[in-house]
Amino acid sequence: MENIFATRVEAIRAMMREHGWDAVVLTGSDPHASEYPARRWKQVEWVSGFTGEAGDLCITLDHAGLWTDTRYFIQAVKQLSGTGIELHKMRVPEQVPIPQWLSSQGFPEPVIAVDGLCQTVSAVAALKAAFDVPVTVVSVPDLLSPLWQDRPAIPSTPVITLGEDLSGESRESRLHWLRKWMILHNLDAVFLTALDEIAWLLNVRGSDVEYNPVVISYLLVTLEDVLWFVRKDDYLDPDEETVASFAEVEADEVTVCDYSEVCLAFSTRVSDEVQRIHVDPDSLNLQIRECLDECAFDVVEGPSPVPLRKAVKNAVEIEGMREAHLEDGLAMEKFLYWLEGQVGQVDEWEAACKLQSLRAEIPGYRGDSFETISAYGPGAALPHYVTPRENAPVLEPHGLYLVDSGGQYLFGTTDITRTVPLGPCTALEREDYTLVLRGHIDLAMSVFPAGTAGCQIDLAARAPLWQTKRNFGHGTGHGVGFFLNVHEGPQDVRQNFNAQPLLPGMILSDEPGIYREGMHGVRHENLVLVREDGSNDFGTWYAFETLTLCHIDTSALVPDLLTPAETAWLNAYNERVFRTLSPRLPAPVVAWLREKTRAV
Amino acid sequence: MENIFATRVEAIRAMMREHGWDAVVLTGSDPHASEYPARRWKQVEWVSGFTGEAGDLCITLDHAGLWTDTRYFIQAVKQLSGTGIELHKMRVPEQVPIPQWLSSQGFPEPVIAVDGLCQTVSAVAALKAAFDVPVTVVSVPDLLSPLWQDRPAIPSTPVITLGEDLSGESRESRLHWLRKWMILHNLDAVFLTALDEIAWLLNVRGSDVEYNPVVISYLLVTLEDVLWFVRKDDYLDPDEETVASFAEVEADEVTVCDYSEVCLAFSTRVSDEVQRIHVDPDSLNLQIRECLDECAFDVVEGPSPVPLRKAVKNAVEIEGMREAHLEDGLAMEKFLYWLEGQVGQVDEWEAACKLQSLRAEIPGYRGDSFETISAYGPGAALPHYVTPRENAPVLEPHGLYLVDSGGQYLFGTTDITRTVPLGPCTALEREDYTLVLRGHIDLAMSVFPAGTAGCQIDLAARAPLWQTKRNFGHGTGHGVGFFLNVHEGPQDVRQNFNAQPLLPGMILSDEPGIYREGMHGVRHENLVLVREDGSNDFGTWYAFETLTLCHIDTSALVPDLLTPAETAWLNAYNERVFRTLSPRLPAPVVAWLREKTRAV
Repeated sequence: MENIFATRVEAIRAMMREHGWDAVVLTGSDPHASEYPARRWKQVEWVSGFTGEAGDLCITLDHAGLWTDTRYFIQAVKQLSGTGIELHKMRVPEQVPIPQWLSSQGFPEPVIAVDGLCQTVSAVAALKAAFDVPVTVVSVPDLLSPLWQDRPAIPSTPVITLGEDLSGESRESRLHWLRKWMILHNLDAVFLTALDEIAWLLNVRGSDVEYNPVVISYLLVTLEDVLWFVRKDDYLDPDEETVASFAEVEADEVTVCDYSEVCLAFSTRVSDEVQRIHVDPDSLNLQIRECLDECAFDVVEGPSPVPLRKAVKNAVEIEGMREAHLEDGLAMEKFLYWLEGQVGQVDEWEAACKLQSLRAEIPGYRGDSFETISAYGPGAALPHYVTPRENAPVLEPHGLYLVDSGGQYLFGTTDITRTVPLGPCTALEREDYTLVLRGHIDLAMSVFPAGTAGCQIDLAARAPLWQTKRNFGHGTGHGVGFFLNVHEGPQDVRQNFNAQPLLPGMILSDEPGIYREGMHGVRHENLVLVREDGSNDFGTWYAFETLTLCHIDTSALVPDLLTPAETAWLNAYNERVFRTLSPRLPAPVVAWLREKTRAV
Repeated sequence: MENIFATRVEAIRAMMREHGWDAVVLTGSDPHASEYPARRWKQVEWVSGFTGEAGDLCITLDHAGLWTDTRYFIQAVKQLSGTGIELHKMRVPEQVPIPQWLSSQGFPEPVIAVDGLCQTVSAVAALKAAFDVPVTVVSVPDLLSPLWQDRPAIPSTPVITLGEDLSGESRESRLHWLRKWMILHNLDAVFLTALDEIAWLLNVRGSDVEYNPVVISYLLVTLEDVLWFVRKDDYLDPDEETVASFAEVEADEVTVCDYSEVCLAFSTRVSDEVQRIHVDPDSLNLQIRECLDECAFDVVEGPSPVPLRKAVKNAVEIEGMREAHLEDGLAMEKFLYWLEGQVGQVDEWEAACKLQSLRAEIPGYRGDSFETISAYGPGAALPHYVTPRENAPVLEPHGLYLVDSGGQYLFGTTDITRTVPLGPCTALEREDYTLVLRGHIDLAMSVFPAGTAGCQIDLAARAPLWQTKRNFGHGTGHGVGFFLNVHEGPQDVRQNFNAQPLLPGMILSDEPGIYREGMHGVRHENLVLVREDGSNDFGTWYAFETLTLCHIDTSALVPDLLTPAETAWLNAYNERVFRTLSPRLPAPVVAWLREKTRAV
């Protein structure tokens, strides 16, 4: 019996032969360069069966490869078995990315086909730059559609708007800011592709992408007009709130246009008014770039200004995030209380479902912010473990259980990881547990001068691990949106160079870990807010405020490994969690939490 | 009475009017982009009176400015007083470098004159890039010579060679390595400008630049020939060793040519053999770049491969550096012992002289590695304080004395800073002393995975300071040469991004500080060697070995501020210093050092 994925690769090769393409490159993203795409764009999964959240395919007539990073190697080997597709490892020293690999294949006049909707301008530029010879990149929108019979449609989920009471700033004010930026940079228009940038600018939210409360759309802002290209007409029987949302946006002088008419609009609606138009090549897709060229605009490529301003939360957003973490913390504590009574009886999947049901009780809950990682023992050694729905491992009364989860609320977004000792732990588990906690605490306690970038303080979280020759292969912290994507830029905390200074109002995760294949995994994650912390002769100082409110278990701790300052932080944090949450928890949970938060 | 420097600026303006130049830019460097130039090229000092080690001048018809960094602001204000030359601050957030400043001056068709010998290709490219309009950069070799009557000649000091017993590698082997690199990169020739690169490659040393044991020269390496352009003919009555050195180098098939004939040689000697020639635009000067263009070479610009290989010391160099630190440590301890008896009687200058005289007794001593900073009290608050020869402050029996010094030995180079409590210290002095020591120790104790760059561990030295909102404005560590420049790349430890990973065999300084204007300064500096420190599941690990051997005074310590690990490091270090040095110190010094190194 032929492997279904091998068959699909062969079908793509038939297209290649028909059109004279040397290679087809497919990404795991959508026309908006989203980190996670809607099902319609899970092209890599459809072709290869690989379900990891990061992976690209490159197919030639005699080779098919999946490029993915360290997080997914084990999973990829399993899922690619029998497909004939080979794993190409990324984020390893000897990595050969797709452009470099393709350039080494010796095509005399390479013709490479891509789905022009799902390939960014930057990616195409990188592809071409890898070759010494001229390359023809053929942009084929929806390249897979002829082969993918039951391909899902573009989603069009209900749309809501956020008032100033929630967002802290009107869309009018945000558009005004963007237009001031345009004038300063001598631009007639800005074209936005990234879904979270559009959602933030227009104060709209949807659920077109799982876990990301966005509306699939493009946005064109000129000095006179705002054109929002969205699938409004696909809402055959729209709910009342969606109708009202579109009406509200239109009342603010935003013209709602059809998603499919974006290229048409360039020539028919704005070509007189617009000459210099700004696009971000890291999110703009090739198809639209080619449309812009056809209209003979003066296209200015550069980073969008939206992510930085979006990353610096205003006072209302910060208050909302605090509220979200209070509610989320109550759900987490109820979950952990429940969990303790269920050890030996529930499996990873059931635990994840219980947690979701507790979050779902929170008023304003709009879904999880990503797929919960509920992992016991060896599963937790995979930083991006996917909990199986069936036959998931049962939580046993020993060792470590890791749960990484978060919620989307109308008033904020959460992301928390707790590693929970379920009973006796090995010495190595306890040491790893404690050292990762040291890393977490040391970063949380960091004080740093204005101008410091995240990569300049990443060591705080790693040094306690490095001292004992342990390490982890993922970033220490990512930006988090306000009721938006749980991963957002431009700031982060990681080893890689990123010149973006941390600014007051930015929110980041603090999540070091240790992973031991086949044994266990530890990760401790809170969200932190960058805050001003005074000025003196040496300059202005910033520090973090921890937003997450959920106790950190001390039963697996090796207290002697903590410094006095770390111990003080831990005790103060657990006490703050108890005092803040206990007034709103049921009596048995309060009594339990009192014990859990006793000072060490 | 007209200020002499104002007169010189006016003389330059007269030249500008005569030639139709809009601006003249002068650097503080030499034709080899040396960090410190010989006196002949102290052009900035001759024009402006500013004696700081980093400063550039830009003169227009209506403005004269000196561009220098934070280290020299106070000094510059003093020295520029009355000259009419204004200070432009660099390494501050609002800095406007010369190219950007010039481009804002509104010259319609700017003509900028530079001393083409003392301006690098990179600097000229940066100058041009800052303008929206085309710029004419006029290269005038020795631009100042018509005005500078008694301008010093190019120095030609005695030349020595290092045998393999000292350098660990023959010049033949080094040339062989360079030629392999050339072949790999499809090059016919490499042209080297940087003096320490040439000295390393040829195993030669001189003293043409104060503190830097180099020979002013250029080097052209082809696959067949090695042409060393040096001022051999200027040695009218050369000493025996110099004669032998030239003979030895020539015996190794290096052709010694005249320094002034480098451009001539391009056309007459190698133009048949050489097409693709590699140059480093960060060290090559404009004048030679223009010569290369005239010869129609295919010039490949890129970083020279020499600095990285030079930075990774071989086993013989490492052994030599250990030996140098042992000898240097003995001199330092004798100095500190002497100093304790002299407090209240000697001034900063006399102390510096005493230290130099002790180093000079060491066999193989070839001079200091930089000008000793001998600074008591407020003077030490200037990280680059210049000790006055006359009326220097007397060392009083209270507060902190800082001495930053080093030696050049045939078998290595040292660089050490000790901050010495001379009696009772204020609480702030003690705290600063202790916190800087924490930073020093934490960096020295760092363990880090292979691939880590210095900027990724810089936080180790700063975090203890940042936690109490203190900081310092200079780098934490610089590379150190083997009997070569005390500052060398490509590695460093600082906040600025530098992708160069630290590699086993690299030597760096570890020198955090705190500076309080008008009060005191603290800096603790040892040199450290990067060493392999084992491998495990998480990868390969590196750590530092401290090379410097001189006790760290504990009398000003606030022991409670140290962590147990830091205290253990300090005690172990002081004990190691005692055990290593005491067999070679006079009895009274041994007894004194025993007390000084008692565990805290």
